[in-house]
Amino acid sequence: MGLVSKMASNDYVGFTFFVGCMAMMAASVFFFFSMNSYDRKWRTSILVSGLITFIAAVHYWYMRDYWATVGESPTFFRYVDWVLTVPLMCVEFFLILKVAGAKKTLMWRLIFLSVIMLVTGYIGEAVDRDNAWLWGLVSGIAYFVIVYDIWLGKAKKLAQEAGGAVLSAHKTLCWFVLVGWAIYPLGYMAGTPGWYDGLNGLSMDVIYNIGDAINKIGFGLVVYNLAVTASSNNS
Amino acid sequence: MGLVSKMASNDYVGFTFFVGCMAMMAASVFFFFSMNSYDRKWRTSILVSGLITFIAAVHYWYMRDYWATVGESPTFFRYVDWVLTVPLMCVEFFLILKVAGAKKTLMWRLIFLSVIMLVTGYIGEAVDRDNAWLWGLVSGIAYFVIVYDIWLGKAKKLAQEAGGAVLSAHKTLCWFVLVGWAIYPLGYMAGTPGWYDGLNGLSMDVIYNIGDAINKIGFGLVVYNLAVTASSNNS
Ligand SMILES: CC1=C(/C=C/C(C)=C/C=C/C(C)=C/C=O)C(C)(C)CCC1
Ligand SMILES: CC1=C(/C=C/C(C)=C/C=C/C(C)=C/C=O)C(C)(C)CCC1
Repeated sequence: MGLVSKMASNDYVGFTFFVGCMAMMAASVFFFFSMNSYDRKWRTSILVSGLITFIAAVHYWYMRDYWATVGESPTFFRYVDWVLTVPLMCVEFFLILKVAGAKKTLMWRLIFLSVIMLVTGYIGEAVDRDNAWLWGLVSGIAYFVIVYDIWLGKAKKLAQEAGGAVLSAHKTLCWFVLVGWAIYPLGYMAGTPGWYDGLNGLSMDVIYNIGDAINKIGFGLVVYNLAVTASSNNS
Repeated sequence: MGLVSKMASNDYVGFTFFVGCMAMMAASVFFFFSMNSYDRKWRTSILVSGLITFIAAVHYWYMRDYWATVGESPTFFRYVDWVLTVPLMCVEFFLILKVAGAKKTLMWRLIFLSVIMLVTGYIGEAVDRDNAWLWGLVSGIAYFVIVYDIWLGKAKKLAQEAGGAVLSAHKTLCWFVLVGWAIYPLGYMAGTPGWYDGLNGLSMDVIYNIGDAINKIGFGLVVYNLAVTASSNNS
């Protein structure tokens, strides 16, 4: 058997898995190869952007295949992907605020919250469906605390102290978390097959795939853009 | 058949194999791409950190698949992985102590001890089970000598001469060896199926997988952190 199965021309889920995988691969190569062109203090940030899209690329590779051969939503792989990439996004917040003196505790706090958010979400979605509302609630609270921390808490203050390009990058990333990330709990709440089908046949997977591309590549590009703007020698 | 088999949502062994594989991959990419951002004298250390996680990533790739298709503990692959990565960790001790004038004999001694430890362990676990206690004892003695060497022997003295960031990194690595590595002989001693099952169904493989992630990625990050702290130009 070959590496790729035939795909129906109206299999939008399969299509977005495929395009998503390619886009993540390309973004990774972009971040990895461009990191050394900027000031050393920004390199780790760009590298982490690349790690996020790289991890996603590998998962999309699997998910595309899983969808093609098993024909189900690859919930398991989505969560493995998230549990690795979302904490790395928290690391990004820390890395760009380091110039303003952010402490490692800020990073660990965000990482911890994001792991709580995802582990409880997974339990609600895949293990203990009967209490999905309870797990979803705990997960939602963790999400809320993350949003609070970056929008109004310690991270906000640090961003203001840093000012300039760091402040505006921080603000953009905050919008990603508030708006871009919100599609995931919406998908969770809508988590009954009957409801998905009501969406005119547009599967939740398509929404997740588009959301992931925006949240991962877009997020990485904001960090990249900060590195470009703030590097001392731009020529 | 596709690339991935279906996985039961409560298959924690399969889950940790998968996450472990991804985390090792991501860590390797991180180490490989960041090595050139630091002083040349630390680059080899970061590169070796990356080799350790890279070797593990490939083994986890196989082990995950072995678990999914054969359904047994992949003891053989674990030992192949260890016999390559544990000597490399010994190399790391040498590399960070080179600044204090460590000799190659120190490195070869640790490598030799670690190979003895692993080969006798493998014989006891897979070849001559009847004398598992004897092989385990020899293996344990080798482990003990390694612990002695780095905590109290020659390596300790060199670390103290180097002082500063090297000393504190050395200390952290010593803790990894004493505490993090101790899970492996514990697993060996508990090596009867009946006992595993008693652990509330939490398989020894899950413990090994979590331990490996901490011991390999954590170990590598300590070395990375030393390179960052001790590099002359941090901007
Ligand atoms: C709040 C909440 C959730 C939040 C998930 C989020 C916020 C995921 C973010 C993923 C990202 C950013 C992925 C990659 O780019 C869950 C787990 C669905 C469960 C229900 C409650
Ligand atoms: C003492 C002892 C053992 C020690 C194994 C060790 C210490 C393995 C370390 C592995 C690491 C560090 C792997 C990767 O990160 C064995 C062979 C189980 C046999 C029983 C006695």
